[in-house]
Amino acid sequence: MRTRAVRVNGVPCKDPAAAVADDFFFAGVDKPGGSAASKRYGFSALTVQIPGLNTLGESHARVDVAPGGVFPPHYHPRASETALVLEGSVYFGFVSSYPDNRLFAKVLRKGDVFAVPQGLVHFLYNNGSVPAAIYASLSSQNAGLVLLGDALFAGAIPDDLLAKSLLTDRHTVGSIRANFRRP
Amino acid sequence: MRTRAVRVNGVPCKDPAAAVADDFFFAGVDKPGGSAASKRYGFSALTVQIPGLNTLGESHARVDVAPGGVFPPHYHPRASETALVLEGSVYFGFVSSYPDNRLFAKVLRKGDVFAVPQGLVHFLYNNGSVPAAIYASLSSQNAGLVLLGDALFAGAIPDDLLAKSLLTDRHTVGSIRANFRRP
Amino acid sequence: MRTRAVRVNGVPCKDPAAAVADDFFFAGVDKPGGSAASKRYGFSALTVQIPGLNTLGESHARVDVAPGGVFPPHYHPRASETALVLEGSVYFGFVSSYPDNRLFAKVLRKGDVFAVPQGLVHFLYNNGSVPAAIYASLSSQNAGLVLLGDALFAGAIPDDLLAKSLLTDRHTVGSIRANFRRP
Amino acid sequence: MRTRAVRVNGVPCKDPAAAVADDFFFAGVDKPGGSAASKRYGFSALTVQIPGLNTLGESHARVDVAPGGVFPPHYHPRASETALVLEGSVYFGFVSSYPDNRLFAKVLRKGDVFAVPQGLVHFLYNNGSVPAAIYASLSSQNAGLVLLGDALFAGAIPDDLLAKSLLTDRHTVGSIRANFRRP
Amino acid sequence: MRTRAVRVNGVPCKDPAAAVADDFFFAGVDKPGGSAASKRYGFSALTVQIPGLNTLGESHARVDVAPGGVFPPHYHPRASETALVLEGSVYFGFVSSYPDNRLFAKVLRKGDVFAVPQGLVHFLYNNGSVPAAIYASLSSQNAGLVLLGDALFAGAIPDDLLAKSLLTDRHTVGSIRANFRRP
Amino acid sequence: MRTRAVRVNGVPCKDPAAAVADDFFFAGVDKPGGSAASKRYGFSALTVQIPGLNTLGESHARVDVAPGGVFPPHYHPRASETALVLEGSVYFGFVSSYPDNRLFAKVLRKGDVFAVPQGLVHFLYNNGSVPAAIYASLSSQNAGLVLLGDALFAGAIPDDLLAKSLLTDRHTVGSIRANFRRP
Repeated sequence: MRTRAVRVNGVPCKDPAAAVADDFFFAGVDKPGGSAASKRYGFSALTVQIPGLNTLGESHARVDVAPGGVFPPHYHPRASETALVLEGSVYFGFVSSYPDNRLFAKVLRKGDVFAVPQGLVHFLYNNGSVPAAIYASLSSQNAGLVLLGDALFAGAIPDDLLAKSLLTDRHTVGSIRANFRRP
Repeated sequence: MRTRAVRVNGVPCKDPAAAVADDFFFAGVDKPGGSAASKRYGFSALTVQIPGLNTLGESHARVDVAPGGVFPPHYHPRASETALVLEGSVYFGFVSSYPDNRLFAKVLRKGDVFAVPQGLVHFLYNNGSVPAAIYASLSSQNAGLVLLGDALFAGAIPDDLLAKSLLTDRHTVGSIRANFRRP
Repeated sequence: MRTRAVRVNGVPCKDPAAAVADDFFFAGVDKPGGSAASKRYGFSALTVQIPGLNTLGESHARVDVAPGGVFPPHYHPRASETALVLEGSVYFGFVSSYPDNRLFAKVLRKGDVFAVPQGLVHFLYNNGSVPAAIYASLSSQNAGLVLLGDALFAGAIPDDLLAKSLLTDRHTVGSIRANFRRP
Repeated sequence: MRTRAVRVNGVPCKDPAAAVADDFFFAGVDKPGGSAASKRYGFSALTVQIPGLNTLGESHARVDVAPGGVFPPHYHPRASETALVLEGSVYFGFVSSYPDNRLFAKVLRKGDVFAVPQGLVHFLYNNGSVPAAIYASLSSQNAGLVLLGDALFAGAIPDDLLAKSLLTDRHTVGSIRANFRRP
Repeated sequence: MRTRAVRVNGVPCKDPAAAVADDFFFAGVDKPGGSAASKRYGFSALTVQIPGLNTLGESHARVDVAPGGVFPPHYHPRASETALVLEGSVYFGFVSSYPDNRLFAKVLRKGDVFAVPQGLVHFLYNNGSVPAAIYASLSSQNAGLVLLGDALFAGAIPDDLLAKSLLTDRHTVGSIRANFRRP
Repeated sequence: MRTRAVRVNGVPCKDPAAAVADDFFFAGVDKPGGSAASKRYGFSALTVQIPGLNTLGESHARVDVAPGGVFPPHYHPRASETALVLEGSVYFGFVSSYPDNRLFAKVLRKGDVFAVPQGLVHFLYNNGSVPAAIYASLSSQNAGLVLLGDALFAGAIPDDLLAKSLLTDRHTVGSIRANFRRP
């Protein structure tokens, strides 16, 4: 017999009587951390994992960007974001929706805060010489993350569709794609 | 003295006593329509404009895609979408979020319906020989629209940031950008 | 030992890793379909069933009304509705709330769209000579359906209560009720 | 020049600094009250009017039903309801949605509470010999009210459409309608 | 093997087909009731328990306050409240937020209604000579309850922290605390 | 004639076409700031003011607590909170709801994060020798703030009511109150 887990939208709740302070706690945001999956861009993301935040409409992450690195254009399908610069300096911006595609951007320094309305494309670029770190607050416990470059080039969207969509030719698409498929 | 309009998030409401049936009505979805701004892609979008839908959590559009045309990868920052094919055939897909970037796609024919979860990247491609049309239902009266190509290349994101973000060089970015800036 | 299913408000979610494109797909809206339960009125309803739409705040149906048929006055307890006429012509209307009971109605033709605010009574009447079909979009994945005639006469509301409520006598109530109880 | 009021969905908010206790207060729920518009049914409704409840997701009313009177089948398009019997005894019920149309009903006495899920048809019938009163709590500050009989017969739905919808003939429809149109 | 219950935020739903009228019913609000845990304050609370109200955004309670008794300052973390006086007279008030701490209060009599915006501190005081009872409606099925005195003194907040927070000394804190810890 | 401003729940929206990057920007969170109103407790709060965050469901503040200082027990009527320690060390805790009043608390150091479920009482206490600072994220653009001590003692709740509520005598209430009324 196979057992299948019941899945709810989010995470099943712990018995309140068994909750302890550590269910509301996370440590280590004072230092870089997180997976190495984004080395190609020069950023790392440390997701704050707090079981007690389930259903409370918030989530958080520390993002580090090395000198010369980017957190490439991306968005969160289910959240607004507000970023506080913890260290260094970073060029931070978001793009308004079609057809204006207006850029709202600033160079942020330690102690600066910048907000991104729900679902808009935004990015970080560390064009300085010291590491930069931000603390990002998202208005959902399940914000999601889509990187525009990866969504376009890392998956299986057909080349000719992509060439038409980017007003270019299949050769150019293929050359970009090759880089996204390198490990 | 300057007068400033009061703005609410959405549209101010009409006096219910003055409402008439035409405030809940829109005609013309049986034919292509809408602005010509998307000629470069080979699609047109006709937004259903119904004053009485304000605050009711829905909006709708007819999208026509010419043979060989695309509605390039895009998303709606504040809505899920369900598309019904009215005419022709279209390759329709969406991409799951980072880091999987899985493609969920199908060739749709008249009478087929396909759904896109909130905020995910999706596209239409008419790789057939007859015009295709869909009727899109969005789960917000203010869904928003972001085209990935336009967000990246039509606005003012710096070239070097874009090159790093797309794992390519500034020359390639510049060549794509030139096409986005042609009228 | 008896096992009881866990029920959530909606449907338990599938493991995202196991999702496939067909979980977001439904076919057959180009033709009439659905149960024969509404033959007495001359309409049929084909509910669009898309597992992936669970929790996404939308649902859809195709409704066909034969010449002379009606989709009798009804409402959706948890949704607004927007209807697109796919074929034929139909007299479509809704009634505002008590005490005005104002009728907002129009004869709709192919390509016309009409919207019904959340929970208001609405109806379709095909008083033409060709079949009519609409595609209805509802702003909830669990919209619900209440037919006024069936709610009043098909269930077990006592006759005398109904007579008082409809400002008539028990004989009239009984005569209408008899028709509702015929298979 | 004509001035048009700005309308928001609900009521514009008072300046908090000018708020006083009476903005959160209403008196007189210990006695019957309200308009005489519902004399034909034998009930009266006294709406609790509290400016400070605007946007707080609640509203309340006292409903009195004379011996032999009914609050005929009705629903609230945007709210659940919970009723507390203040005085007397009343037969209270609601009907589940199509196609079941199951009746959930009980004779309620002083101190009994009965709940009606959002948007379902419900009614009160005082088949006793003393006046009955309930206190109704609604889960919206703008719940709305639709009386099924009035929605069907008091407005302008065409007779033939109504006859088909109620599985009866135009003569019967006309005879009921005549009573609804009497002042 | 240990079995762990699946917990959702709220209560798992009953199979609709098995629902009966009693799932929407509660009796006894015409008399005082509830636990004796609040004897020290001179009030009792009878929570209206209706399984069918799950997810419907409402809950209700009868609160009785003996002559000289109080329902001490408290709030509901997830709900607005509206109170109807069923019997007697009671001094009812709420306090606006920091830094104004304005008191909105009135002596309420039978048939009076008073509303408390979401999450604000409120209280009842029966300074009369007859028992008082109210019927409270809360805008959430899971409103929560925090008593300010108990939150401060009954738990384990350190004495010195409390003394600083109340602008007093540890001796005063200790003397109050002793009373809260008496059974 | 007097003109009255229209008030909406929140802040009227700026014309999107007139928005600039500075509408999404705030500086100075790297240093203590804010009003001196809370000197008596030894903390200061600097509210992050970003016009573009209006309706986006987030707000933020920097809170500094001097050695020996407290941010006394308080809650936010309309928000959950997550706090990141920026500098120093602080004893941070929240109290669960009545009747458990369980304390969930920890000594937090730089880089630690702690979460407080919506509306629960929480506090900070700097019992170290260096200044401490946190960055608080709240899940509402209009979170509200209630300090328990101020709500009880700084406003106009009658002394005898307070004495009964705190299980103490009017003399003790008066002595605490005197401190709250000192400028």
